[in-house]
Amino acid sequence: MPGIDFTVYKGSEGGKVVQATAAGQALGPNEVLIRITHAGLCGTDLHFRGQDMVLGHEGVGVVQQIGAQVKHFKVGERAGWGYLHESCMSCESCFTGNEILCSERHLYGTHEHDRGAFASHAVWNENFLFHIPDAISSSDAAPMMCGGATVFNALEKYGVRDTDRVGVIGVGGLGHFAIQIAAKMGCEVVVFSSTESKKEEAMRLGATEFYPTKGVQELKIGRPLDQLLVTTSQQPDWNMYLPVMAPNSTIFPLTVSEGDLKVPYFPLLANAIRIQGCLPPSRAIHMKLLRFAAFHKIKPVIQEFPLTREGIEEAMDRLDKGEIKYRAVLVADKA
Amino acid sequence: MPGIDFTVYKGSEGGKVVQATAAGQALGPNEVLIRITHAGLCGTDLHFRGQDMVLGHEGVGVVQQIGAQVKHFKVGERAGWGYLHESCMSCESCFTGNEILCSERHLYGTHEHDRGAFASHAVWNENFLFHIPDAISSSDAAPMMCGGATVFNALEKYGVRDTDRVGVIGVGGLGHFAIQIAAKMGCEVVVFSSTESKKEEAMRLGATEFYPTKGVQELKIGRPLDQLLVTTSQQPDWNMYLPVMAPNSTIFPLTVSEGDLKVPYFPLLANAIRIQGCLPPSRAIHMKLLRFAAFHKIKPVIQEFPLTREGIEEAMDRLDKGEIKYRAVLVADKA
Repeated sequence: MPGIDFTVYKGSEGGKVVQATAAGQALGPNEVLIRITHAGLCGTDLHFRGQDMVLGHEGVGVVQQIGAQVKHFKVGERAGWGYLHESCMSCESCFTGNEILCSERHLYGTHEHDRGAFASHAVWNENFLFHIPDAISSSDAAPMMCGGATVFNALEKYGVRDTDRVGVIGVGGLGHFAIQIAAKMGCEVVVFSSTESKKEEAMRLGATEFYPTKGVQELKIGRPLDQLLVTTSQQPDWNMYLPVMAPNSTIFPLTVSEGDLKVPYFPLLANAIRIQGCLPPSRAIHMKLLRFAAFHKIKPVIQEFPLTREGIEEAMDRLDKGEIKYRAVLVADKA
Repeated sequence: MPGIDFTVYKGSEGGKVVQATAAGQALGPNEVLIRITHAGLCGTDLHFRGQDMVLGHEGVGVVQQIGAQVKHFKVGERAGWGYLHESCMSCESCFTGNEILCSERHLYGTHEHDRGAFASHAVWNENFLFHIPDAISSSDAAPMMCGGATVFNALEKYGVRDTDRVGVIGVGGLGHFAIQIAAKMGCEVVVFSSTESKKEEAMRLGATEFYPTKGVQELKIGRPLDQLLVTTSQQPDWNMYLPVMAPNSTIFPLTVSEGDLKVPYFPLLANAIRIQGCLPPSRAIHMKLLRFAAFHKIKPVIQEFPLTREGIEEAMDRLDKGEIKYRAVLVADKA
C-alpha cells in the first residue's frame, strides 16, 4: 500500500502554529485512516504549543480507509479518540484496561510527531477508536474525548453515587461537563464560581446550588460535600474548601498545573478525606460516557473555529485568555 | 448507686503530669467500670500533655462493676478501648459504624475531663469496649487499641490486597505494626528507615526488603509500590517517594502533624495516585484486628513503665526523645 500524505498542525518554539505535511504514512493491518472533521481544544494543548509535535487530542472524523484486518470500523463511519494510545499491552495497567497508566506510554502519546487531532487526517489502531452514537453530533462529541471523559472518569471510576452531594469548582470546559454528568447521575450538584455571572447557565445545566466565591472567606453551604471536582486552571484556596468536605469524602484535582499540591493536613486526616489524582478513562469507561451522554442528551456548550492554522491560533489565544465558553471545537468544513 | 471515686492522671499547663481524683462518677445502666491494668502511650498523647484533661486512649483492664442493662461484659472479664466514643449515634457516620467521624464528636473524645486510660479506673458504655482474645496479653493488647488499629484500618478499610507491594516509612510504634500486619496479609513489605539500625528487627517482623534513606536522593526498589504507609512523626521527602509509587497506588499519611501536606502535584495526577487521610477504625474493623492479631500472633515490641505519675512522665519524656522501641505501655501492677 502506498504511503499516505496529510496535513498536520504543529506547535513550534515561540508558540506559532505551523502547518506541515505528514508524508508517506503507513496504514497497518489493524489501522484506520480517518478524515478529521472536528477536533476539540483542551487546556493541556496550550502546554504543547511551543513544541514540535502535532497538536490536538480530541479528534472526531470519518473513516476513509481501513487496514486489511480491521473488524470494528467500516469506511464512512464516524470515529473519535482521546488521550489513549496503544502503550505496551503487557503490563498490569494495560492488562486491566488502564493503558493510559502504562509505564511505557508517552504521557502525551496522542500528541505524536505525525499524528494528532489538529490535522486533515490521522491513522490509529482501531482498538483505540470509539464509535460516536447517532444522537451525538461530531461537534458535541469532540470535547467529550478528553474533557468530558476525564470528568466522567472521576465520577464513574471512583464510585460516586446518586445520593452524593457533589461540588464543582469552576464553570468552564470541564466544569460545565461535571455539572451535567453529576446531575444526570442523580446527585445534588453544588457549584462554586468566582462571580454570579455563570449562575444562570450553571443552573440550566443542572446545578442544584450556586455559590460565588470572590471575596468570600468562609463557605456556608449546609450539608457538606461527598465529592469535590476541581476544574479551574488554578488550584483553589484549600482552607476555604476543606471545612465543607464531609467525613470520608473525596477531592478530585482535575487541574493540570505545575508545582505542589498544598493542602491543610490535619483537617484532611481528621475527616479521613481522600485526594484522588485522576486522568482520562479506560476505554470501557470512555465508551460508557458516550452511551450515557447520548441517553441523557448531555451536550457541551461550544464555540466553533475553522480547523486551519489561523483558526487554531485564534482558538488557542482565546482559550489562553479565558474567553472560550466553554469549549472550542475546530471544524474542518468551516475552513 | 453511690458515686465512684478513682485516680486519674491529667496534663497541665507547662506539661507536668498531675494526679487527681475523679470523684462521684456515675455508672449508667449501659456502662461498665473498668479497673485499668495497662495503657498504651501514643504519640498523640504528647499533644495533650499541656491540657487539663485525663491522658491516655489505649486502655485495657478488668471489668469491676457493670450497669443494670449491660449484656456483653461480665465482672472479671478483660476489656479494652481506643479512640472511639459514643458520638451522636444519629448521623450518617454513626449509622455506618464510623462514629469516629461523627461531626458532633470531640475529636479527642476519649481524652475527657474525668475519663481516660491513664487512670486507676474508667467508666465507659459497653458498646464501645472490646473483648481481648485470650491469645493476646493485656500488655500487647494496649498498643493495638489506637496504634495497631489505625494501621490495620488503613490496610483493611481501603482494600489493600494480598498481591500488593506495601511500603512502610518508619519503624516505630505504627511502623512496626504495619510491617507485621501487611506481611500476614500476604503482601510484599518494603521498609524505609533512615539508617540500617532497625533492619534486622524489620526483617524479623516480616519485611521483605529494607532501604536506608539517609543521604539517599533517589530510591531504587524495583517494582513500584501499590500502597505506602507513612508512619514517621515528620512528613517524608515526597519528591523521593512519588517516583516509586505505582499507577493507581495509594499513600496513607498516618503521621499526625500540623501545617500543610505538600506533595508534588503533577506526578500525583499523571499516575492517578490517591492520598487517603486515615483514622482509627470503626468498631467492626477494630474487632477484626484483635481477631487477626490473635490468629497470626502479631505482637508489639513494648517497653513497660509503671502506671504512676512518675512512670507516665518518664515514658512521655522518652517517647518525645524518640527513645521508645517501639511502644510504651504503662502497667498498673508495676506501680
